[in-house]
Amino acid sequence: MSPASRLQGVKSSPVRDLLALTRRPEVISFAGGLPAPELFDVDGWRDAFAKALDDRRNLQYATTEGDPALREVIAARMTRRGLPTTEGDLLVTTGSQQALTLVTTTLVEPGDVVAVEEPTYLAALQCFQLAGARVVPVVSDEHGMVPAALAEVLERDKPTLVYLVPTFANPSGRTLPAARRQEIAALAERHDVWVVEDDPYGELRYRGEQVPQLASYGDRVLYLGSLSKIGAPGLRLGWLRAPRSLMSAAVIAKQAADLHTSTIDQAAAAGYLMSVDMDAHVAGLCAAYRERRDTMIAALPDTVPAGSEWTDPDGGMFVWVRLPGVDGAVDTTEVLKQALAHDVAFVPGAPFFATNPDTATMRLSFTTNPPEDIAEGMRRLAAALTSPSAAGER
Amino acid sequence: MSPASRLQGVKSSPVRDLLALTRRPEVISFAGGLPAPELFDVDGWRDAFAKALDDRRNLQYATTEGDPALREVIAARMTRRGLPTTEGDLLVTTGSQQALTLVTTTLVEPGDVVAVEEPTYLAALQCFQLAGARVVPVVSDEHGMVPAALAEVLERDKPTLVYLVPTFANPSGRTLPAARRQEIAALAERHDVWVVEDDPYGELRYRGEQVPQLASYGDRVLYLGSLSKIGAPGLRLGWLRAPRSLMSAAVIAKQAADLHTSTIDQAAAAGYLMSVDMDAHVAGLCAAYRERRDTMIAALPDTVPAGSEWTDPDGGMFVWVRLPGVDGAVDTTEVLKQALAHDVAFVPGAPFFATNPDTATMRLSFTTNPPEDIAEGMRRLAAALTSPSAAGER
Repeated sequence: MSPASRLQGVKSSPVRDLLALTRRPEVISFAGGLPAPELFDVDGWRDAFAKALDDRRNLQYATTEGDPALREVIAARMTRRGLPTTEGDLLVTTGSQQALTLVTTTLVEPGDVVAVEEPTYLAALQCFQLAGARVVPVVSDEHGMVPAALAEVLERDKPTLVYLVPTFANPSGRTLPAARRQEIAALAERHDVWVVEDDPYGELRYRGEQVPQLASYGDRVLYLGSLSKIGAPGLRLGWLRAPRSLMSAAVIAKQAADLHTSTIDQAAAAGYLMSVDMDAHVAGLCAAYRERRDTMIAALPDTVPAGSEWTDPDGGMFVWVRLPGVDGAVDTTEVLKQALAHDVAFVPGAPFFATNPDTATMRLSFTTNPPEDIAEGMRRLAAALTSPSAAGER
Repeated sequence: MSPASRLQGVKSSPVRDLLALTRRPEVISFAGGLPAPELFDVDGWRDAFAKALDDRRNLQYATTEGDPALREVIAARMTRRGLPTTEGDLLVTTGSQQALTLVTTTLVEPGDVVAVEEPTYLAALQCFQLAGARVVPVVSDEHGMVPAALAEVLERDKPTLVYLVPTFANPSGRTLPAARRQEIAALAERHDVWVVEDDPYGELRYRGEQVPQLASYGDRVLYLGSLSKIGAPGLRLGWLRAPRSLMSAAVIAKQAADLHTSTIDQAAAAGYLMSVDMDAHVAGLCAAYRERRDTMIAALPDTVPAGSEWTDPDGGMFVWVRLPGVDGAVDTTEVLKQALAHDVAFVPGAPFFATNPDTATMRLSFTTNPPEDIAEGMRRLAAALTSPSAAGER
């Protein structure tokens, strides 16, 4: 299959077209994984950009590895959060999405196998499909990937890469417990396979204690970080933390990809992270998002039909819902059409599965809207779910 | 060959290590293709970023295709420059380097052939090598790619892609005449092959009349544009102009690459391009660069040994020099070591060749340094070229 036809295959998702409809202003959207714009620290960013523009070198080309000051402040923050990191361990990327693509470019050949938890991040699946990889799902339960199931896949399918969002996963919201992290890191070392820990949400914890990063359990784990959820996604700033053995190849791939990430955005972010009390800012985000999470969870029993199941995430942005009924009887893509008729939106769950999609699932994001809009959106969703043509049986 | 080993192959260039030495402040560097930082419109950019931050949506995620206002103002500028373009023809990319990588991702499979002029842009060669392509050089003379030679390569090697910098080429500085553009566009249509017109320098013309874009001669030409040379490279803003048939696949590839380009940088650039007199700004750049070009060209006869040849570019950033001697007798990588000992730097020409490198060549950039530094740098280069161990004969 040629690259263009692979791309066409990725494209032909009816969900993409439906979601274009969520941009109507009257729609309350639980679809996108968007941070709340009213919580952006606009004044802090304005100061940071103004200061960055005091040095005209911040408008010039820069090194591929990234702004040394930014890498240093990120390394210090990661170290304080329990993952000892130096500037040299980090490559700044154009969002953590680019870090994932660079890792894939560096390690995956067409025909290689990539193992993923199920369900998993949609854009990661697309990335692996574009690389011509065969994606193999690993049995996962309410605590995430099951290590014994991974061991089987490692033996049988010999993957090149294992991909996980271990903390507040997209789309499920679940978190992999420490014991499983340790087991998975050990399996990776034993089988000489790379594990990608994609961690954009890790700082957004609303209850409970931090679980150590998967990367803290072993050297075969590549860690992807992001400022999109705690800073601002519009700057497209992420990073790859990788051992030196892989880093030099990733830097070459990055150079071919875009030479380097925006100099001015990197300088502004370095200045911002050094001048702002980020712990206080993140605590503010968590307080606001906790209330939104609680509002959505509280509304769910009155929103979805009896027999529905949903996750109860400790952090992040998403609740994952499964409507009742035998496999294939309910299709949330049909429900979405009803929902849009009621001016509310979500993402149907099927595209998050590498194989055998569970069509009764849906992802609800609770971060974008204030609590009163969440409550109203859930009322609309309830109405959509009880409207005649969304009764579920096809 | 695995991706990682291809990457290691790209990496193992001794030139990269030598060029790290050019960062010493006492070195006058003709190596990098850097715009003059003192000509950046810092005040204009400061205003543009401040205004962009008045809308907090410019810190949020955005669409993959790019900021509609930015695409509109770029389309209008391209149309005025002779290439009718609408917003829908454009995809904003993270620098035009990303546009090249997206086109490659979209069209090139491992084992496919990419035809290039010789010598050609180093990072393009790297991009094609990373994609596993076989790069075939097309015979080129002082006016660029020879159409009859391209016709032969099209027949014999059946390339997927033809890559050119038709205007003020990197590294040679030469410009493809209109008649050849017409022939090459016609050949592309006849052979159903895509041509990439990489045009970062087109607006930097110091004498003569504009030659119509290659893309104006046919629908099989993908045009890559950039704000790096006329605006500021630190924002990493470029674009792909492509027919709709290819655009949808390129958008999917872009989504996997980095979701979208920096929202804030795009908004600032849109505001900047709409508020500044860009024609006057570009005229100012051209006046300054013309003087720098003339200074370097005037110094060349006293700098390089008798029998040397060099290009006399009508625009852009580069002069391409060939030192005298039979093939292989002179190696400018050795000359670079002497040059660095004299605190001056350039890029040896060999890496710009896909096959059969001419080791007697070198690329000199005249845009980064003011005229007095160019004159001093050329004196140092003359001293380096006459120092005993750089005499050339190995």
